[in-house]
Amino acid sequence: MARVKIAEFNARIVNIFKKAGVSEEDAAVLAEVLTDSQMKGILTHGYLRVKRYFDCVKSGGISPKCEVNIISDSPSWACVDGGGGLGIVIAKKATDIAIEKAKTTGVGIVNVKNSHHLGAVGFYAEKCADEKMFSMAMSNGDVLIAATGSKEKNIGNNPFAYCVPAGKYGKILYDVAISVGSDMKIIQMEKEKKLVPDGWMIDKDGKPSNNPSDYLAGGVLLPFGGYKGYGLALMVESFAAILSGSAVTKNVHAWNTTPKTSGDVGHFIMALDISKMGDACDYEKRVESIIDEIKASPLADGADKIYYPGEKELTARKECLETGEVFVQDDVLAEIEELEKNI
Amino acid sequence: MARVKIAEFNARIVNIFKKAGVSEEDAAVLAEVLTDSQMKGILTHGYLRVKRYFDCVKSGGISPKCEVNIISDSPSWACVDGGGGLGIVIAKKATDIAIEKAKTTGVGIVNVKNSHHLGAVGFYAEKCADEKMFSMAMSNGDVLIAATGSKEKNIGNNPFAYCVPAGKYGKILYDVAISVGSDMKIIQMEKEKKLVPDGWMIDKDGKPSNNPSDYLAGGVLLPFGGYKGYGLALMVESFAAILSGSAVTKNVHAWNTTPKTSGDVGHFIMALDISKMGDACDYEKRVESIIDEIKASPLADGADKIYYPGEKELTARKECLETGEVFVQDDVLAEIEELEKNI
Repeated sequence: MARVKIAEFNARIVNIFKKAGVSEEDAAVLAEVLTDSQMKGILTHGYLRVKRYFDCVKSGGISPKCEVNIISDSPSWACVDGGGGLGIVIAKKATDIAIEKAKTTGVGIVNVKNSHHLGAVGFYAEKCADEKMFSMAMSNGDVLIAATGSKEKNIGNNPFAYCVPAGKYGKILYDVAISVGSDMKIIQMEKEKKLVPDGWMIDKDGKPSNNPSDYLAGGVLLPFGGYKGYGLALMVESFAAILSGSAVTKNVHAWNTTPKTSGDVGHFIMALDISKMGDACDYEKRVESIIDEIKASPLADGADKIYYPGEKELTARKECLETGEVFVQDDVLAEIEELEKNI
Repeated sequence: MARVKIAEFNARIVNIFKKAGVSEEDAAVLAEVLTDSQMKGILTHGYLRVKRYFDCVKSGGISPKCEVNIISDSPSWACVDGGGGLGIVIAKKATDIAIEKAKTTGVGIVNVKNSHHLGAVGFYAEKCADEKMFSMAMSNGDVLIAATGSKEKNIGNNPFAYCVPAGKYGKILYDVAISVGSDMKIIQMEKEKKLVPDGWMIDKDGKPSNNPSDYLAGGVLLPFGGYKGYGLALMVESFAAILSGSAVTKNVHAWNTTPKTSGDVGHFIMALDISKMGDACDYEKRVESIIDEIKASPLADGADKIYYPGEKELTARKECLETGEVFVQDDVLAEIEELEKNI
């Protein structure tokens, strides 16, 4: 692991994407979101993705122009077209619209069609909570998991997030994908000759397997909680893609590299401004009281602490912000340096 | 199992609750919702609950007057006070408000405070989908599951539902509680001397157990998907209870029997009218196409069919509606007959 200064490294990322035709302002958003994931320790959605987003733009599969055009609009709900641009920038602009609507009417919902991979979906939920709003954010994606009872990749590992202001605890920030564990972790287990935990995957014949090689040979990820997780994947497909009019399941290409086409990913972002409605009195104290109570509970066998959703990530980010530095994987740093040399 | 005529049995339920002081109109809603669960085979939320709701009303813990009073209101969002009434009737009235708002503005969100147990939360989500809306519905409840890492009941088994119109398939209707399996099933396993499946529960010392007697001796249910399910329980607590200003965690009494107090349960109901927004064109065909594709997938080892969420329940209900009859457990029928004799 290398350690880099956040401000300097952000500037390097901005520079890379400017060379791919992305505006300085939009590239800065991209750098902000990737750095946020890196600081939170969500390495699968951090700097590891710089080259892949770059390659998609260079190939013509993702547009460097990241504009949102409003298709339909009302005081509390808009549907926008992302123009086939970078999902991160499009989703950030959609979130800004949701926040503005919520500030005015209490409710801001924005659906996005014709977008691409948006990084860690929790970022957009958290932006709403920064404005003291309760939020949800979701996006569909390429088919990656098996619906309960099937042995085929037939639904996306559709990320879902919500965020709630939490007083002294900062925020409850929940950000999950639908699979029990990630494909990248299985690939790592294969390299380290480790066994995959029970319940993570089936092999190409639809049988449970703990052998990471079986995943690479046509295995499929399983949803968390069995059919309960499968149903949540369909919820995201419905709210992010059906409502927005974007592509579904096998027609989605979140990392599109085919010129003159769109990966056509859909997003759903909802912001609710509690100050406009409900019983806003001391609500953060009440969220605190839930966390206080849960954290004071006696521990289960083998547990050393009870966390609230997002606690580990927000703590990791706080440490980075205090030092102004963030860790970067050596191979990722080398990849980015190589990219800088060749553009 | 006995078999009863739905219309006649509904009338009997109406009669029971009228004798507890519930209006004929409100008692009819109660009968409708309980019968809907019974027809769907969700027996834990069907006729089994008649006596318990009745006892709560008779004790003075739940008010027979089921009025919703608007605390705050805007075109797309309202917060209402249920006056400590029957959750089923309150939630149905809140759903009607959400639908009306969605018909006008595209978005209808209603938060409810000061309510009680609302039966199967999917009922309210489905009512919105009957109006061709996409919906979510949630409610908090008495602490019943352990947050990940703890060995204590410290968060509700907070039900969550969503519903989406699905063309020839009717609807996708997702309706789940947060625990892997239900406490009532464990009690049944104890009677039948069966083992509880892995991952369902921990014993009073916080250790995993398969012995149903350990549950009765102070064991606790676990959330589905581990921390991913625990986070969803907190989402429901936040959106249903914090936003509405109702009680949280240990202060909730969904089946309140203490006179002159309120169990103070909170609900969240959201209806989105796709015809007002987004790309409404052929959206049901697109939902169908997802289900078509998933159902046509090759089966995993041991599976005999791939279902969509709600398929089993909606199929069971269809059969009941065709015959006009529904099955009732013998002991439940006896309990209701006993109740009728004594009121």
